Amino acid sequence: MLREIEVALGDRSYPILIGENLLDARCAPLCALAEGRQVAIVTNPTVAGRYLAPLRAQVEPVAAGLVEVLLPDGEQYKTWESLNKVFDALLEARFDRRSLVIALGGGVIGDTAGFAAAVYQRGIDFVQVPTTLLAQVDSSVGGKTAINHPAGKNMIGAFHQPRLVLADVGTLRSLPAREIAAGLAEMLKHGAITDPAYLGELERDMARLTACEPAAMIPAVARSCEIKAAVVAADEREGGLRAILNFGHTFGHAIEAGLGYGQWLHGEAVGAGMVMAAELSARLGMLAASDRDRLVAAIAAAGLPVTGPAWPVARYLELMQVDKKAEQGVPKFVLLEGLGRAVVRRVPEADVAASIAARIG
Amino acid sequence: MLREIEVALGDRSYPILIGENLLDARCAPLCALAEGRQVAIVTNPTVAGRYLAPLRAQVEPVAAGLVEVLLPDGEQYKTWESLNKVFDALLEARFDRRSLVIALGGGVIGDTAGFAAAVYQRGIDFVQVPTTLLAQVDSSVGGKTAINHPAGKNMIGAFHQPRLVLADVGTLRSLPAREIAAGLAEMLKHGAITDPAYLGELERDMARLTACEPAAMIPAVARSCEIKAAVVAADEREGGLRAILNFGHTFGHAIEAGLGYGQWLHGEAVGAGMVMAAELSARLGMLAASDRDRLVAAIAAAGLPVTGPAWPVARYLELMQVDKKAEQGVPKFVLLEGLGRAVVRRVPEADVAASIAARIG
Repeated sequence: MLREIEVALGDRSYPILIGENLLDARCAPLCALAEGRQVAIVTNPTVAGRYLAPLRAQVEPVAAGLVEVLLPDGEQYKTWESLNKVFDALLEARFDRRSLVIALGGGVIGDTAGFAAAVYQRGIDFVQVPTTLLAQVDSSVGGKTAINHPAGKNMIGAFHQPRLVLADVGTLRSLPAREIAAGLAEMLKHGAITDPAYLGELERDMARLTACEPAAMIPAVARSCEIKAAVVAADEREGGLRAILNFGHTFGHAIEAGLGYGQWLHGEAVGAGMVMAAELSARLGMLAASDRDRLVAAIAAAGLPVTGPAWPVARYLELMQVDKKAEQGVPKFVLLEGLGRAVVRRVPEADVAASIAARIG
Repeated sequence: MLREIEVALGDRSYPILIGENLLDARCAPLCALAEGRQVAIVTNPTVAGRYLAPLRAQVEPVAAGLVEVLLPDGEQYKTWESLNKVFDALLEARFDRRSLVIALGGGVIGDTAGFAAAVYQRGIDFVQVPTTLLAQVDSSVGGKTAINHPAGKNMIGAFHQPRLVLADVGTLRSLPAREIAAGLAEMLKHGAITDPAYLGELERDMARLTACEPAAMIPAVARSCEIKAAVVAADEREGGLRAILNFGHTFGHAIEAGLGYGQWLHGEAVGAGMVMAAELSARLGMLAASDRDRLVAAIAAAGLPVTGPAWPVARYLELMQVDKKAEQGVPKFVLLEGLGRAVVRRVPEADVAASIAARIG
């Protein structure tokens, strides 16, 4: 089973290939991109141990040169230092503007290597080979790249579209259950904001998805990529519509920031954040209580937290002030007007506070 | 006398205003951009002492907030550390995605502040207020931003167009003669690669230009901006035509790299580099010896060096290998097929070597 989704962005359009064992067999679109070019594979030691050899075996015979860059694993390494390791390796090997970067790994590798490609000699091509579910359905699609700053996540970055995304669901079987759940959070989000039928499929297949069965996972990853790609194509630089992808994220970022990044996985924070956002939607009379409860149940079934840390509500509100979706200090919220219909609104702080209070524990 | 040049780049088009005393009177397009937004003025201590007060007086009454960031002066500070000073200031003041950066200074400030704007929260608006001749006719036009890496100049950067450029030729009177000459190098280049009539005007007015007479300087700066804007509009991301702007630069970069950046001004290295490129063009039978000599005389009249440092030719060739215009190790050269007609060619290394040997001293 091989699925292909096109991200339609004019002369920056690119395909996402979703299948099993994509890394083991020769992948023609990847080899075509690498042909005759200097290629850098950026990855981390864990992923390298599993998937670097098969990727290298494909690329090395066709590339004009190959450099491998290993970055330390973890969100705390999405830094300028990691970025500079990539630059140093590329410059030492005299990589020119025609070079290609391949990001092999999860969101941290994709964001860091993607940003390195975005600014190396003012921008070179790159390919995403996401090896986590979160990266396959979310961070590898849409061209957002970034590193963190002590004052906030993803504060320094660029919009830089890959030339190709290869999502091999076989790589998911080595992931811990928590990371699968974290990916499912974003997939549930895609259903919740745009597609109730897809949400229903995720609910129906949840046991097979948490077990990473390819026959369930491939169409689900493909549908999530399709939804995200359509939103990105309509609003590449996050002028409006793309904001709906932040459903659950304003609350989720507050949880991540308050705990210190890395305590909860991003998808876990988004899980609890979507519960709060659904609660807020219901409280404002936009979402039926039964639909709110259905979404909360699906989030729980995926193995995700459905309550935030038991902090004072004021702490949540303060943490949300620095969210970068805030404009001049007033955060906007993505809310549901029924399942499958997301809207962006400013809402009274009292309702935000009450929704948080109802969903902490 | 006020001249306006439009840089035509679709929805990223912007005006360049060229005049005298632009900073002292209220500038309507600048105030319109700053209105209701958080604004950061990025500059250096020397420029701040002269021009920060009048700029602040214009912006502060209309802006929603104003932050001033002083970076140390000099090419050696076009670094990640300087960039981070800008990020820290913006984040501390909670600048959001609607914020505006104003770069007040020469090319170092424009490149650094422009790159900071390019990647802060994945890109915010910026305005260039160039205060050196080189910045007014060259670096502020075209959207190239970057910082340096120990392995090479401008290796890390982005294409990020300003929303407005304000070139006040009154700021040029405080510049040392060497810096005026360095700016004239790029202006002579514009004439040499596209417009023999403009080259003739520069030759005719050279004494008034080296004296910074506004009545001579304003139309010349405007014509240079117009030429650069037209080239940039035709080739924003340096796919082809824009390469002609590198006339003299492959040699010039070698001189800068070999001396250590900051020994010669960029424009001085370009001056000697253009002599070598003209020599190479003549040697290949593309440029008449009389036109070569005419260009060399104009470069000398501007007060620029017409010979490179007396290094072994092999050293020049080695230094040119790392030039980023090199593709897979083979540098291309911008040559003249007569004055006003630039072309990009690969040429035999022996001719390159002979041209260098003829123009060192």
